Amino acid sequence: MNPSQLIIKKRDRHSLSQEEIRYFISSFVKGDIEDYQMSAMLMAILLNGMSEEEIYWLTNEYIDSGVTLNFPESQGRCIDKHSTGGVGDKLSLMIAPLAAECGVMVPMISGRGLGHTGGTLDKLESIPGFQTQIPLDRFQEIVRENNFAIIGQSDNIVPADRKIYALRDVTGTIESIPLITASIMSKKIASGVDALVIDLKVGNGAFIGTMEHARQLAESISKIAMDFNKKIIIHFTDMNSPLGRYIGNAIEVIEAIEFLKGNMEPDLKEVTYQLVADMLILAGISENFDEAEIMMDQAIESGRALERFRKGIELQQGNPEVIDDYSLFPQPKHKIEIKAHRSGFIKNINSKGIGYALIDVKAGRKQTKDKIDYAAGLKLLKKVGDKVTKDELIAEIYYDNDHGNKAAKEIENCFEYSEDEITTTGRLLGTHK
Amino acid sequence: MNPSQLIIKKRDRHSLSQEEIRYFISSFVKGDIEDYQMSAMLMAILLNGMSEEEIYWLTNEYIDSGVTLNFPESQGRCIDKHSTGGVGDKLSLMIAPLAAECGVMVPMISGRGLGHTGGTLDKLESIPGFQTQIPLDRFQEIVRENNFAIIGQSDNIVPADRKIYALRDVTGTIESIPLITASIMSKKIASGVDALVIDLKVGNGAFIGTMEHARQLAESISKIAMDFNKKIIIHFTDMNSPLGRYIGNAIEVIEAIEFLKGNMEPDLKEVTYQLVADMLILAGISENFDEAEIMMDQAIESGRALERFRKGIELQQGNPEVIDDYSLFPQPKHKIEIKAHRSGFIKNINSKGIGYALIDVKAGRKQTKDKIDYAAGLKLLKKVGDKVTKDELIAEIYYDNDHGNKAAKEIENCFEYSEDEITTTGRLLGTHK
Repeated sequence: MNPSQLIIKKRDRHSLSQEEIRYFISSFVKGDIEDYQMSAMLMAILLNGMSEEEIYWLTNEYIDSGVTLNFPESQGRCIDKHSTGGVGDKLSLMIAPLAAECGVMVPMISGRGLGHTGGTLDKLESIPGFQTQIPLDRFQEIVRENNFAIIGQSDNIVPADRKIYALRDVTGTIESIPLITASIMSKKIASGVDALVIDLKVGNGAFIGTMEHARQLAESISKIAMDFNKKIIIHFTDMNSPLGRYIGNAIEVIEAIEFLKGNMEPDLKEVTYQLVADMLILAGISENFDEAEIMMDQAIESGRALERFRKGIELQQGNPEVIDDYSLFPQPKHKIEIKAHRSGFIKNINSKGIGYALIDVKAGRKQTKDKIDYAAGLKLLKKVGDKVTKDELIAEIYYDNDHGNKAAKEIENCFEYSEDEITTTGRLLGTHK
Repeated sequence: MNPSQLIIKKRDRHSLSQEEIRYFISSFVKGDIEDYQMSAMLMAILLNGMSEEEIYWLTNEYIDSGVTLNFPESQGRCIDKHSTGGVGDKLSLMIAPLAAECGVMVPMISGRGLGHTGGTLDKLESIPGFQTQIPLDRFQEIVRENNFAIIGQSDNIVPADRKIYALRDVTGTIESIPLITASIMSKKIASGVDALVIDLKVGNGAFIGTMEHARQLAESISKIAMDFNKKIIIHFTDMNSPLGRYIGNAIEVIEAIEFLKGNMEPDLKEVTYQLVADMLILAGISENFDEAEIMMDQAIESGRALERFRKGIELQQGNPEVIDDYSLFPQPKHKIEIKAHRSGFIKNINSKGIGYALIDVKAGRKQTKDKIDYAAGLKLLKKVGDKVTKDELIAEIYYDNDHGNKAAKEIENCFEYSEDEITTTGRLLGTHK
């Protein structure tokens, strides 16, 4: 087989066979196919698409490029939640310990911030000592001991995706349904889950802007899940305004801890409870949402979900005392108060704009090599639907560099107002059938 | 500007501005944009196309990446002929000296063999001592002195195209009309021509298989020529069977010398006379084909065109005695006679098949670094339309490695026969209006 002939085949809208996909991916991982050939192939895939069969073999080849974990003792209770990324999305920090406490095994492999969106690993690393790069053996031990662990993508799991993702990021080939499907599903299947709940975020602050595009991706993901015999539930959730009240790293962990202490921001509760309930139902632990809700309430009220998180921090070498003493987190040096520039009802808070503004104060990265300031971030004092008067405090930005004023100005412009009262609908936009 | 944003723009079918094209091409030439980003862009261009304006700026940027020659003394008589490549296509070897003798200045920048097609440079280099890589100053001097010179692409002329072409060759991005247009036109314009005649070959042995595709390319090329104020005539010529009787390197030069001595194979004469006549008309030297024909006949019959070629060889350090003594060319060690496996009329001679078979005996290259055997090649004793009886000699293959028998077998299979008499039409398929 010849790399350019295969590129030409996809370029000319023909389907690639299992053998051809295997050859192309495995040769690329070995270094026998060059980056410039892979990027031409990726663009051809993005523009010409792939059949379900091709996506299946691509996913399969991704999985076969590395090791596969499994948790046979889970007996169908090994379930992960995957989010497609958003602003203020600290859900994994609450969902993993809460689901674990309710009896689900959650071997979670997470990512870092990308563009304007935050990443679970960066947030966890704001906890002093917390390790996200730990050997897979140890990862499995922790999952077995505490029902959950959250680590970064290992070199051993799906190395093909890791290498290809880095290339997609710089060649305009991220937004391809076949490539997104193979990337998500290969990692989840390789991590040994029995079933999967997907939080497919839609809107201005997500990578997927429209319901139409979201439905296409959901359709592709659910087909591949079916092909691999994995049960799956896909929720569409709204990501036009930031989730919760805190956006950043340390402050999002604090918001998650507060949640587990029972101080639940309504939109966080709505999405967390729905996704964990789905995990419990897929695991056969609960029959329906109401049953699951009772279990979740008890796990929170008893403090057991919080203790599960505390143990998780300890097992990953973080300082568990942060749970009782937030001053142990990195602390911001400066604060700017942001005020409403007019009276009215808050109509929208542009989450993408906020995500990008916070990159200026190093809450996120411009480039992979950039260091994050874990203390930098934003607290929203007002949310969509709230009534404000001119000059009322609407947000506070925390920072420690020269760009605080610029970021504050940009964030101020992310608030849109309306004369009329705003009816807020929930975050849940429906599930993929 | 950001490379991936520009890739995404083209990916999403938007037009790139002059500034964006300039940034992308110049950054690539400087090494600031990586090969893998360029190949993703090239695939996006191939699949999504470019507007006339974009192709114009791309061509312009290619030209600006290097030096531009000019021949102000030509007063509109500086004209080149460009062929899109075929099998047995030694036309440049006759056209350059013949047009030069008739008063045209021909600064010809040629290429090497590519895939199954031969290259003018390889053919010329079969003349002992002949130099195709000479400094541009000297190239211009020779053109001024002898009205023609034929050299290889210099690092100084259109380096952007040189670098991009190498990448296209291995990423399945050759067959793009915008990229082909910019590649051809930039080189010709940078070489300082006033006008251009294009021999756009169509058929099995050409890179362009159908008239539909040929017309699209012709349309694109002629628009860009117009945008640069260059007069152009585009001929579509048939490349289903090999051109002339000889295919190889040294033997094609011999066929060209024979042509200039007045021994003109009819199909070679048909195309050569037409293209040179067009050059004379574009240069304002002849009013029409009939006038041009008289000049060409005189140039051949007087031996002046041959002497022009002899001087050209001498000026490029080749041994001009090859013209009178063909034994000075590299000589083949072995010969295999190929016989008709049945009686009938020859219906077709698959030129692509012959081109690939001759690569086995090193008349062409599999990879850029391969060395050519200048003595290897094929002589067709029978051509399309000829009547043959079983076991009659139809061709002879010359070679000096272990693959002669394999190649001979493949060539035998390139001959197609018919019970019925075959009416041959000429090579000229019309001009682009």
